[in-house]
Amino acid sequence: MCGIFAYINYLVPQQRKAILETLINGLKRLEYRGYDSAGVAIDGGNDINDAKQSPPQIIKKRGKVRALEEEIYSKDDLNLDLEYDIHCGIAHTRWATHGVPSAINSHPQRSDANNQFIVVHNGIITNYKDIKTFLESKGHEFESDTDTEVIAKLILYLYNTRDDAKMSFRELVENVIQQLEGAFALAFKSIHYPGECVATRRGSPLLIGIKAKNRLTSNHVPILYPGDPRDYESHQHTGTEGVTFKRSQSTTDFEVLGEQKEVEYFFASDASAVIEHTNKVIYLEDGDVAAVREGCLSIHRITRKKEDTAVSREVHTLMMEIQQIMKGSYSYFMQKEIFEQPDSVVNTMRGRVNFEDNLVTLGGLTEHMSEIRRSRRLLFIACGTSYHSALATRQLMEELTELPVVVELASDFLDRSTPVFRDDVCFFISQSGETADTLNAMRYCKKRGALTVGITNTVGSSISRETACGVHINAGPEIGVASTKAYTSQFISLVMFALMMDQDRISTTPRRQAIMQDLKRLPELIKEVLSLDGQIKKLAEELWEEKSILLMGRGFNYATCLEGALKIKELDYLHSEGILAGELKHGPLALVDEDMPVILIIMKDSTYVKCQNALHEVVARKCRPIIICEKGDLDAQKDASSIVELPGMSDCLQGILCVIPLQLLAFHIAVLRGFDVDCPRNLAKSVTVE
Amino acid sequence: MCGIFAYINYLVPQQRKAILETLINGLKRLEYRGYDSAGVAIDGGNDINDAKQSPPQIIKKRGKVRALEEEIYSKDDLNLDLEYDIHCGIAHTRWATHGVPSAINSHPQRSDANNQFIVVHNGIITNYKDIKTFLESKGHEFESDTDTEVIAKLILYLYNTRDDAKMSFRELVENVIQQLEGAFALAFKSIHYPGECVATRRGSPLLIGIKAKNRLTSNHVPILYPGDPRDYESHQHTGTEGVTFKRSQSTTDFEVLGEQKEVEYFFASDASAVIEHTNKVIYLEDGDVAAVREGCLSIHRITRKKEDTAVSREVHTLMMEIQQIMKGSYSYFMQKEIFEQPDSVVNTMRGRVNFEDNLVTLGGLTEHMSEIRRSRRLLFIACGTSYHSALATRQLMEELTELPVVVELASDFLDRSTPVFRDDVCFFISQSGETADTLNAMRYCKKRGALTVGITNTVGSSISRETACGVHINAGPEIGVASTKAYTSQFISLVMFALMMDQDRISTTPRRQAIMQDLKRLPELIKEVLSLDGQIKKLAEELWEEKSILLMGRGFNYATCLEGALKIKELDYLHSEGILAGELKHGPLALVDEDMPVILIIMKDSTYVKCQNALHEVVARKCRPIIICEKGDLDAQKDASSIVELPGMSDCLQGILCVIPLQLLAFHIAVLRGFDVDCPRNLAKSVTVE
Repeated sequence: MCGIFAYINYLVPQQRKAILETLINGLKRLEYRGYDSAGVAIDGGNDINDAKQSPPQIIKKRGKVRALEEEIYSKDDLNLDLEYDIHCGIAHTRWATHGVPSAINSHPQRSDANNQFIVVHNGIITNYKDIKTFLESKGHEFESDTDTEVIAKLILYLYNTRDDAKMSFRELVENVIQQLEGAFALAFKSIHYPGECVATRRGSPLLIGIKAKNRLTSNHVPILYPGDPRDYESHQHTGTEGVTFKRSQSTTDFEVLGEQKEVEYFFASDASAVIEHTNKVIYLEDGDVAAVREGCLSIHRITRKKEDTAVSREVHTLMMEIQQIMKGSYSYFMQKEIFEQPDSVVNTMRGRVNFEDNLVTLGGLTEHMSEIRRSRRLLFIACGTSYHSALATRQLMEELTELPVVVELASDFLDRSTPVFRDDVCFFISQSGETADTLNAMRYCKKRGALTVGITNTVGSSISRETACGVHINAGPEIGVASTKAYTSQFISLVMFALMMDQDRISTTPRRQAIMQDLKRLPELIKEVLSLDGQIKKLAEELWEEKSILLMGRGFNYATCLEGALKIKELDYLHSEGILAGELKHGPLALVDEDMPVILIIMKDSTYVKCQNALHEVVARKCRPIIICEKGDLDAQKDASSIVELPGMSDCLQGILCVIPLQLLAFHIAVLRGFDVDCPRNLAKSVTVE
Repeated sequence: MCGIFAYINYLVPQQRKAILETLINGLKRLEYRGYDSAGVAIDGGNDINDAKQSPPQIIKKRGKVRALEEEIYSKDDLNLDLEYDIHCGIAHTRWATHGVPSAINSHPQRSDANNQFIVVHNGIITNYKDIKTFLESKGHEFESDTDTEVIAKLILYLYNTRDDAKMSFRELVENVIQQLEGAFALAFKSIHYPGECVATRRGSPLLIGIKAKNRLTSNHVPILYPGDPRDYESHQHTGTEGVTFKRSQSTTDFEVLGEQKEVEYFFASDASAVIEHTNKVIYLEDGDVAAVREGCLSIHRITRKKEDTAVSREVHTLMMEIQQIMKGSYSYFMQKEIFEQPDSVVNTMRGRVNFEDNLVTLGGLTEHMSEIRRSRRLLFIACGTSYHSALATRQLMEELTELPVVVELASDFLDRSTPVFRDDVCFFISQSGETADTLNAMRYCKKRGALTVGITNTVGSSISRETACGVHINAGPEIGVASTKAYTSQFISLVMFALMMDQDRISTTPRRQAIMQDLKRLPELIKEVLSLDGQIKKLAEELWEEKSILLMGRGFNYATCLEGALKIKELDYLHSEGILAGELKHGPLALVDEDMPVILIIMKDSTYVKCQNALHEVVARKCRPIIICEKGDLDAQKDASSIVELPGMSDCLQGILCVIPLQLLAFHIAVLRGFDVDCPRNLAKSVTVE
């Protein structure tokens, strides 16, 4: 979590006002990653000639980006009309991990009162205490409770104590990160290196947008390993006559700008922050250090390992459309995303499910299907909502593959150092494709020789790049922190995979056909469920002041209860819990009385009778539950305080319809309680630290 | 849930008062199985000659057994001095499943206003609606909402419409149960068959205690299949010259009483209800019908299936001591059981762990070890607390066996019709050995050819009888509904199994030795933790009025959090939830603010740093958590509102120490809230229905 953003303009004159606007807009796009506080750093002074003398300015504010924006424009001492030919600004929106949200704990963090070095950080430094102790022994005084501050102080310490006065900004950063343990994406700015920016990542996502007037002449930026003759800095201060790879010398594939000198660079945690400026982006890999110097971008790696076979990083062209990330007529992104589901599920299936022949083709997996069919186990590893999508489809997966299916929470899977085998197939489900625990679990399984499969919503994400194969769920960008349409699209992607696994079996053909025909009806059925919005809103009006809510179900809808409870937890700060109805008598039933709100899912599947038993038990304790059931199921409704009637469909797909009323319920309760639906407190969209 | 009890005295004269006392005491022992209401049925009238004319009396009362007892002794119209040579009384303590707790829904249930047939039932009849509709069409009127009432009405209907007036009570019951679907243990009484009792089971436990003055002459009671020449009833009314196997003819092993005529029989759900009268018991199997007629017990089966190879049921001698089930100096059984843990863990290890040679021998598994080592997967299947014991030891199991380890909730496992393979080894963990879902899962796996292993605390229970092999945890009888010492003993049993699996490996010898030496220290360490009781009580005084509590931990202590939360749910009716600290950022963190009570477990194992990150995150949200940590860990304590310091030990055993403060906390909160610790509302000890 946390979003980092940097903007460098080189020979593209910009007023300070425009620079700040770019930084602020970038942060707004990244706000879903954290919104405890925000901050920017820009060049200081109010006279262009001051730049080298005045320390850079840092403006920080607790709260959302809007608060920072107001803070900036309310400042009297800031000349907004000042124009820069060359400038580097860095910015940050924070999700607090170390230290309470406050201005002092906000980023950018600085090296000293003169702001000589300034850094923004996404991630967690696990050995920050050791470094802090060391630096304190050297007389540095710390002002914040953050782990990040040690980075800014350490780079200043190295700058002051370096042997070689010609050491470049990039080399300083390389020295710093060799001392750091943990996960990070970092961007640095310094008064000693005006107009330069260095950024690097290990474990947290980072990409670079390139904006130039003319077409780029190459789609590749070479990676410079130590000793590379093209690395002009290392030549410079080893005394060798440097081959300075500036853009005037368009002799190598290093050169993507051709003859043009004017260029703008954007460093960002996520592509959504750069798409309004450019669709040309480079995704950095762990260990990359990217430096912009004199308008020229170079990508470096400190050491060359055996597995470092890449010689360059590709410049990708983003397909994302800017309107995809706008709210449209809805009040909240999450609301928009809930109501998009009739379309997003179609996008997930488009070109993959052939409803005439009842065949499924997942292009990304076709080549690997025989290997997957021969595997010993299928493991589905994920966090949060993505984990629920795997639980929701586990039974169908077991039915159609007849393989052992294991569903694991990524963090627990790693904590346990779970045994993984070469003939395992491991699926990693993550909307962002950057979820730190899921990503680490993927690398863990890959190292042990298992086949890795990614299920993500983000083209170019770490998981989609590093897995052997995968499925893009194509749900479109999801901005609301609480995942909705990604859940249903993950669900369908897993169903499609299960169908594809089973495709060659004659005996199960009727089952597959029934499921596929229901997939075809799905958009219409989702619309029907969404039409209950008014009814769900009334339900929310009855429930919004409760302290606790229990959601109960079993079989195919156990995962629905967990997911519904998670939505209510996330958005409504209300203690809700999903309970397996079969476990009721082993403890949770003690909580049930006439005052405890209970939502019970009873659909007409093989657990119907058992769910009715659960209903009897709850009613015998004087509870009058809210029942989610099939249209016209009078038996289930008898003892209900309210009912939500849904269209019936194949048991294994029913969870898609059942979760939607719970999404709507969580949404309406949040609105009634006056909470920010898109930015629930304490949470961030994409959890890129462990 | 529900407890049933019946008492038949034959030629052992008893006053009505003594009979009622026996019934009431039996119910008190079974009260842990349900305490919504209780009831008894005895012969009616106040003159011994009335017996055949006066309908039997039914006395029922909502609430605990004590309420029934008061009701009985406050009755003016009951001659308590009346003496019976021969009498049958039946009794019931209820855990409501169908119909709210009330006198009318209490058991015994009756056939009609004249109480011609009376029944007590433990279980659920799933097709009761169909039977009810049928009986209503025949003019029967129903008075209760229970599923049980159909049984009483159906037997009267069959009695009235039978072709053969000589049909025995036992045959009538056999006809009834052939119409029933679901799970049950039943005991019947009827004015038409004075002094007789018929009892039967399918899915719910039932045993018979036999009390005779002299020694029994045989330890076996033969099973009578249809057409058995020893079945005198069938001979009698087929007209054949009957060989009436009464006790005067001591010609077969049928005869256990020898020459003595005087005998008392006790039918009960559980041995603890009969131990004060006799230590001779017969455990009935599913499908057995036991009848007492003219003081003579016979056991029948309606059909003989291929798998019915048993020719008799054994008379077991119980080793249980009556004082084992008494509270002693403690106020509650649960409290006694918590404080017994230094001893109960020793009993679990006694004769199994050799601390000199660092060797483990689990006698019940020795023969199967090579088969288990060759298996494809280890599955651990259980409900509630037993499930948590499997989760708690999963990591060690994976580490030492290097096999895929799957932990499943029994009900979900069955709902999903999970694929099971012939080379799977399936463990079934249940304190009572009668948990319906676990038992059903065991039968499901057995049918599919997997090796089944039972881990129970109850010798003679269904699970210990029907599994291929197993481990008795030897924790001693556990009466408190909330499981405590059984959890720690299950935990140790699973650890011992993991050690035994790994015993032959040289490289892991130091690890095994370290664990075993810590097992040796365990009783002392548990005593040290129990000495914190006063501190925990103070903590309870701070927490008892809260609405929600979150318990967080990860790695080895994730299960501890789930188990602690379950205890608080069960005993305190307070919404507590165990949260994997690694999942915090994926939703639950939104719940955290300065008002939310959080208990965080941070022990010095491999997740220590990650747990500290969780602590930072929670503290950053202004929460001041209660920290459970290792003695002297000042880093962990810094931001705590309270601390509980525990002795450190091997990571994989630490959960045993960590759970005890949570057991104590749940206990003290319940006392402060004024709840009945041993009998939490809505719950029963042994969940013998799905």
